[in-house]
Amino acid sequence: MTSVNTVGKWDIFEIAVPGPSGNNPYLNVELQAVFSFFSREVTVPGFYDGDGAYRIRFMPDREGEWTYRTRSNAAELNGKSGSFICAEANSGNRGPVRVRNRHHFAYADGEPYFPFGTTCYAWTHQPLDMQKQTLDTLKTAGFNKIRMCVFPKHYIYNANPPLHDVYARIDDETLDFDRPNFAAFRHFETQIGELAKLGIEADVILFHPYDRWGYCAMSREQDYRYLKYVAARLAAHRNVWWSLANEFDFILDAKPMEHWDRCFQVVEENDPYGHPKSIHNGDPEISYNHRKPWVDHVCVQNSEVKKADEWRSVWGKPVVNDELEYEGDIPRPWGNIGARELVHRFWMMVMRGCYAGHGETYMHRDDLLWWAKGGELRGESWKRIKFLRELVEADVKNGLTPLTRADNRAFSRIFAAYDDGVRFIYFGEHQPRQWAIGLPMDDGDYDLSLIDIWNMTVTPLEKAPLPVSPALRQTGGKVMGGAPEAAFGVILPGEPYLAVRIRDRKARRGADQFRGGERLWLRSASTT
Amino acid sequence: MTSVNTVGKWDIFEIAVPGPSGNNPYLNVELQAVFSFFSREVTVPGFYDGDGAYRIRFMPDREGEWTYRTRSNAAELNGKSGSFICAEANSGNRGPVRVRNRHHFAYADGEPYFPFGTTCYAWTHQPLDMQKQTLDTLKTAGFNKIRMCVFPKHYIYNANPPLHDVYARIDDETLDFDRPNFAAFRHFETQIGELAKLGIEADVILFHPYDRWGYCAMSREQDYRYLKYVAARLAAHRNVWWSLANEFDFILDAKPMEHWDRCFQVVEENDPYGHPKSIHNGDPEISYNHRKPWVDHVCVQNSEVKKADEWRSVWGKPVVNDELEYEGDIPRPWGNIGARELVHRFWMMVMRGCYAGHGETYMHRDDLLWWAKGGELRGESWKRIKFLRELVEADVKNGLTPLTRADNRAFSRIFAAYDDGVRFIYFGEHQPRQWAIGLPMDDGDYDLSLIDIWNMTVTPLEKAPLPVSPALRQTGGKVMGGAPEAAFGVILPGEPYLAVRIRDRKARRGADQFRGGERLWLRSASTT
Repeated sequence: MTSVNTVGKWDIFEIAVPGPSGNNPYLNVELQAVFSFFSREVTVPGFYDGDGAYRIRFMPDREGEWTYRTRSNAAELNGKSGSFICAEANSGNRGPVRVRNRHHFAYADGEPYFPFGTTCYAWTHQPLDMQKQTLDTLKTAGFNKIRMCVFPKHYIYNANPPLHDVYARIDDETLDFDRPNFAAFRHFETQIGELAKLGIEADVILFHPYDRWGYCAMSREQDYRYLKYVAARLAAHRNVWWSLANEFDFILDAKPMEHWDRCFQVVEENDPYGHPKSIHNGDPEISYNHRKPWVDHVCVQNSEVKKADEWRSVWGKPVVNDELEYEGDIPRPWGNIGARELVHRFWMMVMRGCYAGHGETYMHRDDLLWWAKGGELRGESWKRIKFLRELVEADVKNGLTPLTRADNRAFSRIFAAYDDGVRFIYFGEHQPRQWAIGLPMDDGDYDLSLIDIWNMTVTPLEKAPLPVSPALRQTGGKVMGGAPEAAFGVILPGEPYLAVRIRDRKARRGADQFRGGERLWLRSASTT
Repeated sequence: MTSVNTVGKWDIFEIAVPGPSGNNPYLNVELQAVFSFFSREVTVPGFYDGDGAYRIRFMPDREGEWTYRTRSNAAELNGKSGSFICAEANSGNRGPVRVRNRHHFAYADGEPYFPFGTTCYAWTHQPLDMQKQTLDTLKTAGFNKIRMCVFPKHYIYNANPPLHDVYARIDDETLDFDRPNFAAFRHFETQIGELAKLGIEADVILFHPYDRWGYCAMSREQDYRYLKYVAARLAAHRNVWWSLANEFDFILDAKPMEHWDRCFQVVEENDPYGHPKSIHNGDPEISYNHRKPWVDHVCVQNSEVKKADEWRSVWGKPVVNDELEYEGDIPRPWGNIGARELVHRFWMMVMRGCYAGHGETYMHRDDLLWWAKGGELRGESWKRIKFLRELVEADVKNGLTPLTRADNRAFSRIFAAYDDGVRFIYFGEHQPRQWAIGLPMDDGDYDLSLIDIWNMTVTPLEKAPLPVSPALRQTGGKVMGGAPEAAFGVILPGEPYLAVRIRDRKARRGADQFRGGERLWLRSASTT
């Protein structure tokens, strides 16, 4: 088969080749294509799609002519060659997301990507009308990532039968984990494509413990084959992320730590694009060693968000707290915080230079909980998370760097972060009527705003006189403190859950001013 | 001088003896009395009170006849003997507080003491009418401990001159740290007596860094002599506690760690009654080693109250978080949390089997902030702290023991604690509509109440059906979870900041039922 096609950069170029259908090709047929662009070669795994159909999917990242040649242990599939033209990216396609600036992410086209995700573990396993409803909700909800499982889920509020079995059914009790249900995979990738159209990254969860079908009890060989197959099918989708597991530590008896290491490696070996890879814990006190080289970003489940500093520095990678408890009211401790608390936790994570994930678990007569099934959002946090995302996207370029206690001890209690030309100070449960720490040390041209994180308002603030700063104290005859903490202060309403945004107007006149802008953010010398 | 007197148990028996007034007796005269009760002897330091007056104060702890004999290097003070009768304790005098049950406190008469304290660092240094106002406020505020400094305070909102210098003034600039201002000490101990009448423990802070007079720069010898003097003057007051320092770590350059060790020892050597001793950090990341034997209880400053578990187990002593940030609105990060947040933090500390301290720092035109000067309470948290104290005192006998993640993983997120016959589950920011974890495993005779920590209401709850508990999950073929989490559930309003109280009616029929009651609190077997 040869074909000449044109495909947009970071879209999917697919080769379909007919081949053998006997002797279980899933187990026995190897297929790859080597895609070439001048001297560069990219090896791309293919996969069996049932009924004698084989496919190889490729996401080109470079405009121009690409050629390819297949390799296979099946003669009919071996040595097929062809070429295609990669054209400029279609509108809205920024390419895959990668880690940038150590703790942050960016699209391949260079635009920053700030994850503000949600969680609908089993949404692709619900009835089709509900899946449509989920996509409709996502159109306007403001999330740009979604955590979703390949396998269906069996758990409280998750008793309904899945739309598809992921493997072929032998009888009422048994699946054949050596034979994929191709329809299930086709459906899953269709929905990933729908998410791509909405600009939403699909954080694909490859394993999880909540299972009545036996997916959790596949053999190691079956696990590795499954991962290879999923990567071959999905990796050409620009919006795929790999979450090795939800709550891997709940199935350590079946899948010990070294198995997870190998699972990461199998994905890495079969994903030519290096989509972001992570693994998600269940118990906040059990951690995968996220410093291992195949982990791209740290996905934690931990409600103690004030520890975010520690995670960021210990792991040295982007930190996404994808389960800091869900907005809801169910009788599980992880699924019943108030909307205000979840929004507060999002702000704390973001102000620590990290990211957070949303979930919603309100009790429902028909067990339609967003966290598991998608459908409709019924809570109040999602709007405020969207508001936070808009604030970040409006001003942040590189990613937020937190102010820490090394800058001023106050920042162990108050959450603040900056990027070129912008700074946020989030007061959380603190409600000062005046403030200075973290404001600029020079009296420059600043645009000051007060942000109400719940009411979603941004109102101008004026420069105000500096509040009183700690007086001199004598310690063994030495004089300490008393240095001005900023060039000016602000007057605040004395209510909790507010933030201040400081924009450097000079720095914002042009990109080449960003460096100059950064220089103005002298760190406060006071240590009180 | 001999005298026969009668004094109530745990009141103060004072011997006054005239003696030499020349050659600076503060430095040069040693005075003690040995008090005897049959074969028991208690050595009690005396002190110079100016104008040739010497005093020895003794707090007897045993009814009957006590005799004494003085010892001194001054002949006029040596060998004085006498006796007195210790009668039964006067009404309201329960004796000094000591540690009991490892993590808790009790009065000498055996009644439990649960500290619900406040902070007015420099209240005894304010004008007398304001001190009267402070005592009036304390009459009804519901606090039973107050943190207060011997030395005046120099800091923001603390610029006014103190009522007394603690040492004799040489000139406008200089104090003579070898000559006490006796009037200052007399006044201080008068106010400790006033607190005793109100049933309030005086947590006497011996050193602190906020100083313009030089108290902070005394020599080591002056420090030790000062401690000996303070102990000799104050230790006979039943309601004294010793806080070696407020924020000792901010003056480590002048007073290194081994100096603090020695300070503890000097207090111990001069306090025959063993009043509770602690030391208070400034930086949450710097800690005295509270495991040292002379530390009776752990006094921490730390806003991250969710770490209370850790403090309790690491130090193995009562934990009092005496600065978990103050209710207020000043531009310092430690002094501007909302009332709701402070009340929430109090509940979290108490539900971890620990204790907390109140402070109030609302900005005021005349800098009259309760935390420093006392006066009037202007906030909203104190009423709710009083309410919490009443709840604890109504049902707790031994002290609350927290439920931990070893009991059920939910208790790393939900705060719950129990004592014989009673259990509290505090949901904090969680708002389940149904709940079971932590409720009794038997269907006994329980009195269930819903507590609204802010609105201070206690309303009856009915037993309700068990909520759904996690379904079976397969992990490598194994079945986990699904065991009932309690014998019954409760229906809740789905709002945050509520608690449930469970009383075992059977256990409450008599003290001898407490053990039986305890047996009923079988720990939940579920680990989900």
